[in-house]
Formats: sequence, structure tokens, C-alpha cells
Amino acid sequence: MSDGQATSRRAFLKGTAAAAAGAAAAGAAKAAEGPDPLITEVQEWAQITGDGVDATPYGLPIEYEGDVIRRNVEWLTADTISSINFTPIHALDGTITPQGCAFERHHSGAIALRKEDYRLMINGLVDQPLVFTYEDLERFPRENHVYFCECAANTGMEWAGAQLNGAQFTHGMIHNMEYTGVPLRTLLAEAGVQTEGKWVFVEGADASSNGRSIPIDKALDDVLVAFKANGEALRKEHGYPVRLVVPGWEGNMWVKWLRRVEVMDGPVESREETSKYTDTLEDGTSRKWTWVMDAKSVITSPSPQSPITHGPGPLVITGLAWSGNGAITRVDVSTDGGMNWTQARLGAPGQKMALSRFYLEIDWDGSEMLLQSRAIDESGYVQPTKAQLREVRGLNSIYHNNCIQTWWVRETGEAENVEVS
Amino acid sequence: MSDGQATSRRAFLKGTAAAAAGAAAAGAAKAAEGPDPLITEVQEWAQITGDGVDATPYGLPIEYEGDVIRRNVEWLTADTISSINFTPIHALDGTITPQGCAFERHHSGAIALRKEDYRLMINGLVDQPLVFTYEDLERFPRENHVYFCECAANTGMEWAGAQLNGAQFTHGMIHNMEYTGVPLRTLLAEAGVQTEGKWVFVEGADASSNGRSIPIDKALDDVLVAFKANGEALRKEHGYPVRLVVPGWEGNMWVKWLRRVEVMDGPVESREETSKYTDTLEDGTSRKWTWVMDAKSVITSPSPQSPITHGPGPLVITGLAWSGNGAITRVDVSTDGGMNWTQARLGAPGQKMALSRFYLEIDWDGSEMLLQSRAIDESGYVQPTKAQLREVRGLNSIYHNNCIQTWWVRETGEAENVEVS
Repeated sequence: MSDGQATSRRAFLKGTAAAAAGAAAAGAAKAAEGPDPLITEVQEWAQITGDGVDATPYGLPIEYEGDVIRRNVEWLTADTISSINFTPIHALDGTITPQGCAFERHHSGAIALRKEDYRLMINGLVDQPLVFTYEDLERFPRENHVYFCECAANTGMEWAGAQLNGAQFTHGMIHNMEYTGVPLRTLLAEAGVQTEGKWVFVEGADASSNGRSIPIDKALDDVLVAFKANGEALRKEHGYPVRLVVPGWEGNMWVKWLRRVEVMDGPVESREETSKYTDTLEDGTSRKWTWVMDAKSVITSPSPQSPITHGPGPLVITGLAWSGNGAITRVDVSTDGGMNWTQARLGAPGQKMALSRFYLEIDWDGSEMLLQSRAIDESGYVQPTKAQLREVRGLNSIYHNNCIQTWWVRETGEAENVEVS
Repeated sequence: MSDGQATSRRAFLKGTAAAAAGAAAAGAAKAAEGPDPLITEVQEWAQITGDGVDATPYGLPIEYEGDVIRRNVEWLTADTISSINFTPIHALDGTITPQGCAFERHHSGAIALRKEDYRLMINGLVDQPLVFTYEDLERFPRENHVYFCECAANTGMEWAGAQLNGAQFTHGMIHNMEYTGVPLRTLLAEAGVQTEGKWVFVEGADASSNGRSIPIDKALDDVLVAFKANGEALRKEHGYPVRLVVPGWEGNMWVKWLRRVEVMDGPVESREETSKYTDTLEDGTSRKWTWVMDAKSVITSPSPQSPITHGPGPLVITGLAWSGNGAITRVDVSTDGGMNWTQARLGAPGQKMALSRFYLEIDWDGSEMLLQSRAIDESGYVQPTKAQLREVRGLNSIYHNNCIQTWWVRETGEAENVEVS
């Protein structure tokens, strides 16, 4: 297997359609494999008129892409109103996640809350408690940032082995959108944080309320009170009309249908930050306050849901990398289970707390591969192997699994989730 | 009217919900205006469970946002299969346009073309004519870029005056997406462009074929053969499975359902680049080859479809700016019809051939305004007034109107499309 970037791809094209192309272009006799009717004959779609501009006031994907959807795993939870579905990352490219297929996690289901009925209270250790309407929020200076949101449980099933087959299921509790909102620090400044105020407790308007404690330094740093994602209103399932955006930190803190921010002198130690979202170690004790999502990456194609469908020759390996500690600076790819690594190409320079797309173009010789990717962020942190992570964390964890993922790609091009020692 | 950035907004909040907030937070007696039941009473949506994670495998906007859709104007064209609809830019923020509400322009309707049936031919003055399947395209190195696509006719009705009322209709023939694709130069290199090859002629697989000539220098520069937008497959109405992306140049050249690229020694001078998409000047002659979309901007809010719904005080003025000649470096805003200008804040540093979002926060005194924005790009070009444009171009044009737009905002907050002399 060698780097294919210098290889002319004409060779692999010549054997197939190119012969027909030559024939069609030159009007010559049939090429060896016969002419391609899709080239030589006028097709049906060139003889009809299609849909008018009034057909779909708000569009959905074409029917042929009907499998590129969020999916849930029934046995993971008892009820779908307190469950998760997964972004179809195996079928996406680039970095932006469309809202329509961006994963959801609910604790008591997605509620419908009108802008007119929306209120956000800031209270507690402040000079003046305040309540904001939606319209009030629109009157403050806004910011736009692309950030990833990853559930702390993403890749959680991998602690126990290679249980789920497909990047969508192993790594699909993530999305990456351009958020528009008002910095939380702006609203806190309106209320006036008192000197004893060291934490904020944030909660949502749904039945679960999903309350979480956030240190005041983070709340005054880059946290956004967001009302748009990818330019348009948040979707119902993403917290319409207003959610919290906590860049780089676990998704559970990104409270949806945000209704209250209380300034406090300590953390609440709520259910969602004690019995849940903590890391149970080998000795049975739990490590709390693991907020930052460490550097991580996954190859999205080829992968179990995106097998190689062609023979040897040029192959694009691609995937996603991200870090809650800043920008991704480098991604390496291995085709032999981590023995040798090649630096991949980033689609664009890494941005802080946002997904990076990486590519490695190879000349696949048709033999089996153990595909892995390894992310490195601007702090110098290197994504660990599963073995390295287990040494520190044991086998009792659910959350915060950022280990290197392995796909076993066979000669047929099919891929499978495996563990390598 | 003064810059409101230094103004505390607590004043405007105090009079309304803040009093109730104080009451609710302190558990005190009714405030002057009475408590807000949305704060003091447990609401319905906090007592129910909402939608589960299997409710919408592919999601749409919440019903309350049902007016944020593409709209067409019936009297503009005889038939919707050769027509246009408009992006609801008045209701969007940030820079990304979701595919579902990104404008469409068709010449014979949107066709359904399966990936399996897709072929792209490169022929003409090349060493080896080639035909690519969709799968072939996936084997070449990909790039990701955010670019705007603007129809040459955007703002075209403004030549004759202020005819359409709303930013969606005056400036909504634009969208801005993250494209993933293969550089056209890569595919041309495979075929081998001969020295006589000075132009390419590109055409689509739909009945119109919408053929356009592009100089070889542009074709070998930044043109993409794109198959994803905002991470997912192109929508049917945007050319699924493959369209051309011609950064900074008029949307008509971004051929959808791309089927053929012919390398030629001169332009074809097709219908779409002679009788259409040329600029008819004062003397009746037409100027051809106006490909680049010059620097332009528009205030999206407040605007006729997005009036001010509150009284005097803090007001966020926001809009979009873009240039086919590179990055936006500066946007100025006037509230008095162009007599005085204030530099607006860019949401992020300008990116080449991509939309920039700008904001200006003011302390509105409640008096009427003549709102304008003026874009400046990295070449130093300044967006002209309508009068300046008419001096050069006369009144016979349809296309390439990048003049400064004026919204007359009344004391009531309502806005209207007007011309100022």
C-alpha cells in the first residue's frame, strides 16, 4: 500500500467507463466492453420537466438518501423519551451537521415551547434577578461560532468491547453546527454576579429539567445562550427556542429549552452530575467533574456502514476529529492496527472545539486492513488506545471514552468493529 | 441615536419582566405589574413527556417556524419549472444556509437522478476522453469550502425601482453552504487538457442542459465538482447527485446534475450566456461575460418581513455581505439614508467568496430610519449606490444589480423597500 497522491487515476478509469467514453466522444465503433447506454442514449430525465420551484417550500433529502437518518438502538434504554439517537456520520462529509440528522438526547422527551411562552430567569447571587423574554435576548449583541456537541456517553459501549457495528452507533452521538446566540457572560453582567458567585446551575423547561452546575469561569468565558443553529431556528429536538452551548464540554451540560441560570457559591451535585455523567473507576469510586471532551477521532469511511464497493486502487479514507481542549492540529491514520502511522490531510485548519474533517488518499492493494485514526490537539494531547485508557480508568466506565477505534476491512471491502490488542 | 454597546440594557428590562423576576426570585409579593405566570406557575410542558428519539428520523423545523420557507413570486415567470424561489434570509442568522430553505432556480424543473445512473463525461480537446461514475468521483482527493451561490438576477427587480417588499424577495436568490467535492482541475488533469484548450463548456443532465462556457483559467483554479453540501448529499433541487461550484461567479454557471465538461478553443456563446445573463446597457447593446458577482450587502433585520417589534432602546441591526472578488473586509451601516456611516461588526473575519454576517448594535431612539449597508471587499471595491450603478449601466439591465439597498423603518418599527435619491 503506498501513498496514491502521485498516482494517476486514469489507469483505474481506463478499464471501465473510459473506453465507452472514448467511443462516445469520438463517435467511433463500440469499445471492448460495449458502449454505456447512459452516455450514448438520451435518458428519460433529459426528456421530461422536473419539479417546479413551488414543490417543496422546505425541502427534505431526495428519496434515494432515505437511509441517511438518525437511528436509535432499542435495547440501549427502556423508553425512547429518555434515550438517544445517532447522527449518520458514516454517510456525511465535510464538517457541518444538518439539524435534520443531528443526534438527539432527551431525558423526558422533546417539548414544544413557543417563543412567546419562553422565559429565561437569572437569579441567585446576583445584584438584580432578571427575566428575559425571547425578544429581550434578540436585543443583545450576538456571536456566531461553529462548535461540536458530543454526548459524554458517545462510544460508551466500547468500554466492554466492540459491541456496536458502525460509526453511526459507536461515534454518532455528536454534531457540529454554527450557533448564533448571546454570550452568557453578557446576561450575567446585566444581573451583576456577586463576589460569592462561583458556580451557575442551569436547568431546562422540560419535565426532567436536566440541571447541571458549571463553574463561573466557564460561564463567563465562551458559553452561549443560543437560538439559531446553521442559520435557522433551533429544531424542537435541539431545544427550541433557546439552548445553552458549552463549547468543548459534555453535551449533557448544553441544557435545552433553557429556563434558568442560578448563580451559586457551590455546585448543586445534582443527579445528572453525580449518579450520572461521572466516571466509575476500577475500585468502584466515581470521578466527578469530567467536563471536557478529550481529543478523539473516528474513520467514517470506509467503515461497517460504508464499505469499499470497488476493487484495488485509489481509495479515500476519511473521518472526523475533535477536541474539547482546542483545535485539532494533526490526525494520523494506520492501516495495520497501529503499527505504522501516516499523517492525514486536514480539510481545513483546525478550529477550536469544532469538528475537523481529515482525508488520507491511498492506493489500496486489496488486502485486509486494520484501520485506525489518532487525533492530536493544540495542547499536544494524543488520543489514547483502548488499552491505555483502560489502564487508567478500568472497565466500569460508561462515559468519556475517547479511545482509538479500529475497523477491520476485509479483502471484500466490508468492514467490522474489532478490538486489537 | 447613539452606539448602544456601552449602554446597560438593564434599564429596558427593568420596566417589564424584571420586576416580576425579582418578585418570583425572592418569593416576594406581587410586583407593580403583577407576577408573570410563565415564571410563577408550573407550565404544561414541564409536566408532560415529549417526543421520543424515534419520532423524527430526519427532522424538519418546528411548526411555529412554518413561515421560514422558500417562496416564489408567481408573476415573475410563466411556469414554476423555469423559475426561482427565494431563501428566507430575513429570518436567518449566522452564515450557513440550510439546504431545506436554500433558493432554487430551474430551467426545466428539478430532476431525480440516481447515483447509479450518474455519468460525467470530459471530452473535447483532451488527450483521453473520460467518463466518470459517481463512485469514480469518490476515489479522488476531496476539498471542503464554504461558498455563496448568488443568481445573477438577484435584486434584478430593483433596477426599475423598489418593487418587491422584503429582503427575501429583493436579495434571497443566494445561499451559502459548505461544499465537498473534487476540484475540476483534478479531473481535467486525468483527461489531459491540450494546449489549444482555452475554455470548458459545462452542461447538466436535465432537459434544459443549461450549458455555459467557462475560461480554462477559472476551470483550473477553484471550481469544484461537488457532491455534498453542509455535510450531506446535495438535495434534488440543488443538483443531486453532482453539481458544479464556481466560487464567486453567477449561479447560472453552477450547473446542476452536471453531465459533461467539454474542453474547447473558444466559448460556445449559448443562449444562457448571450440572450440571457448578459447586461443590456443604456444604448441597447449588451455587455457579455459578467461572471463575477461584485461586492454586495443587505440588512436582513430590521427589514419589511422582520420589523422592530419593541419600543426604543437597544436594537440589533444585522445583515449579510459578500463578494465574488474575495473576502469582505468591512461593512458600514447608515441609519439616515447614506449621509452618515458607522462601521459594523463582522461576526467572523471575512472568508473568500462566502457570506459574512454583520451586526451593528444601536440605542434606537424610536424615530424613523433609512437603513442602508455598504460592503467593502479585499480588493478595495465599495458597493455602489443605485444612482451610481444606473450612471454606468442605464435602466435596461436585469442582472448583476449589487446596489445599496434602503429600508425605510417607521416609528412603529415597520419597514418598507424605498429608493433614496
